[in-house]
Amino acid sequence: MTEAAGREFEYRVRVPYAHTDQMGVVYYANYLVYFEMARAAMLREVGLPYGELEKQGLALPVIEASCLYKHPARYDDEVRVASRCLLAGPRLRVDYVLTCGQTLVATGFTVHACVAPGGKVVRPPPLLCRLTAP
Amino acid sequence: MTEAAGREFEYRVRVPYAHTDQMGVVYYANYLVYFEMARAAMLREVGLPYGELEKQGLALPVIEASCLYKHPARYDDEVRVASRCLLAGPRLRVDYVLTCGQTLVATGFTVHACVAPGGKVVRPPPLLCRLTAP
Amino acid sequence: MTEAAGREFEYRVRVPYAHTDQMGVVYYANYLVYFEMARAAMLREVGLPYGELEKQGLALPVIEASCLYKHPARYDDEVRVASRCLLAGPRLRVDYVLTCGQTLVATGFTVHACVAPGGKVVRPPPLLCRLTAP
Amino acid sequence: MTEAAGREFEYRVRVPYAHTDQMGVVYYANYLVYFEMARAAMLREVGLPYGELEKQGLALPVIEASCLYKHPARYDDEVRVASRCLLAGPRLRVDYVLTCGQTLVATGFTVHACVAPGGKVVRPPPLLCRLTAP
Repeated sequence: MTEAAGREFEYRVRVPYAHTDQMGVVYYANYLVYFEMARAAMLREVGLPYGELEKQGLALPVIEASCLYKHPARYDDEVRVASRCLLAGPRLRVDYVLTCGQTLVATGFTVHACVAPGGKVVRPPPLLCRLTAP
Repeated sequence: MTEAAGREFEYRVRVPYAHTDQMGVVYYANYLVYFEMARAAMLREVGLPYGELEKQGLALPVIEASCLYKHPARYDDEVRVASRCLLAGPRLRVDYVLTCGQTLVATGFTVHACVAPGGKVVRPPPLLCRLTAP
Repeated sequence: MTEAAGREFEYRVRVPYAHTDQMGVVYYANYLVYFEMARAAMLREVGLPYGELEKQGLALPVIEASCLYKHPARYDDEVRVASRCLLAGPRLRVDYVLTCGQTLVATGFTVHACVAPGGKVVRPPPLLCRLTAP
Repeated sequence: MTEAAGREFEYRVRVPYAHTDQMGVVYYANYLVYFEMARAAMLREVGLPYGELEKQGLALPVIEASCLYKHPARYDDEVRVASRCLLAGPRLRVDYVLTCGQTLVATGFTVHACVAPGGKVVRPPPLLCRLTAP
């Protein structure tokens, strides 16, 4: 994350039974689902719901995802996802910090390409700057 | 659902991308996840969070689940789940009605056994009557 | 299931950690995923892979699903899914029996509509009879 | 991946409908499920099924996961997962290469701690060397 990273968005998700595994904790792939939910909430919050972007022909496919697991979240925990967005050349990067109360659960990031109608990879269009404006 | 069914509980869930499939709608198994989320919210609402019940040794494993699919929910839809609970002899039954705005999305039910510490199947303990009190 | 039900198809799936929950068993919604995998294998086996049907404009959306849970499957179990197909008027019904070794795990069924190009609900086309031929 | 990385293991998984999303491709979190399936197969292949390790009190929780998405896998694709294991001090690292036919789908890795009975983090026990022996 750099100084250029935008404002922080917050999303909260309660862990369903469906997301636990037999170790009694959230199965590791499900944190990427929480990333996605936080991303969707972030886009909605700036007036750019992802479903609308798709209808306009803009897609933001994930080209990289990474997660560091610090302390497992458990069933019924309310996980807070703080996310920040960074426009880096032709890419969009989102950083996530997941906490439960005072406990750091995980950190991670996703990197996205911007794909315009017809499948052409483009630079992030100006309207996405709403994500990074302070 | 019978007259004896208890009060209606309401839960709302927004469809994540994770739950869609290539038909562009919610994948059919995920409605059972929404049932579970609604059940958990119902139990929490009457002061019996499922995690607490489990810690006390009480489990409510699903022994039957059924869903009728009426009209598909889609990405980013806010699905409303109305649920009602019925204590039927040794079983607990929960009925669900899923709607998006005015559209009926699905109906369904789950039937649960009550398992006490040690794995013994028991009749629903009195505290579960909170679910059915009007 | 009726006498008219077709031949039995067999599919085997090994339970991944992803499908377990904190009770140490397969989360209940995942059995519907095993139904789907068995259905796909069945269609592939008679030369009608579902992806091909979709490309020809034929979809088989689920309009009902039901599952009776008998004995939980666990991590790394190899679950055998026996499925049989029944063409019932405008509907396609598939029945499933899930076992682990000699243990009955679950039974269930799904009911499907047949949707032709343009979204019109049609009777199951003749080629689907391959599913029920003995 | 280094020269010290062990032999290559191979696992094949067919993409179910459950794993697709409305973009018509495998939802990004599901690649981590394929990583897990490949890991489980690798352990089974060297005679150390993960379920057995857990029964002996050894757990290999994921502390980091990363994936680079190259070309999306689609419904019914058979994805080949090649995995290699590396014992790096107190950590176990597994690298994955996912392909469909000649197409590179994704690469990624997971890093695991070794947790002994009682929750103590330990160095990988000697029996895990079977994973890296040529």
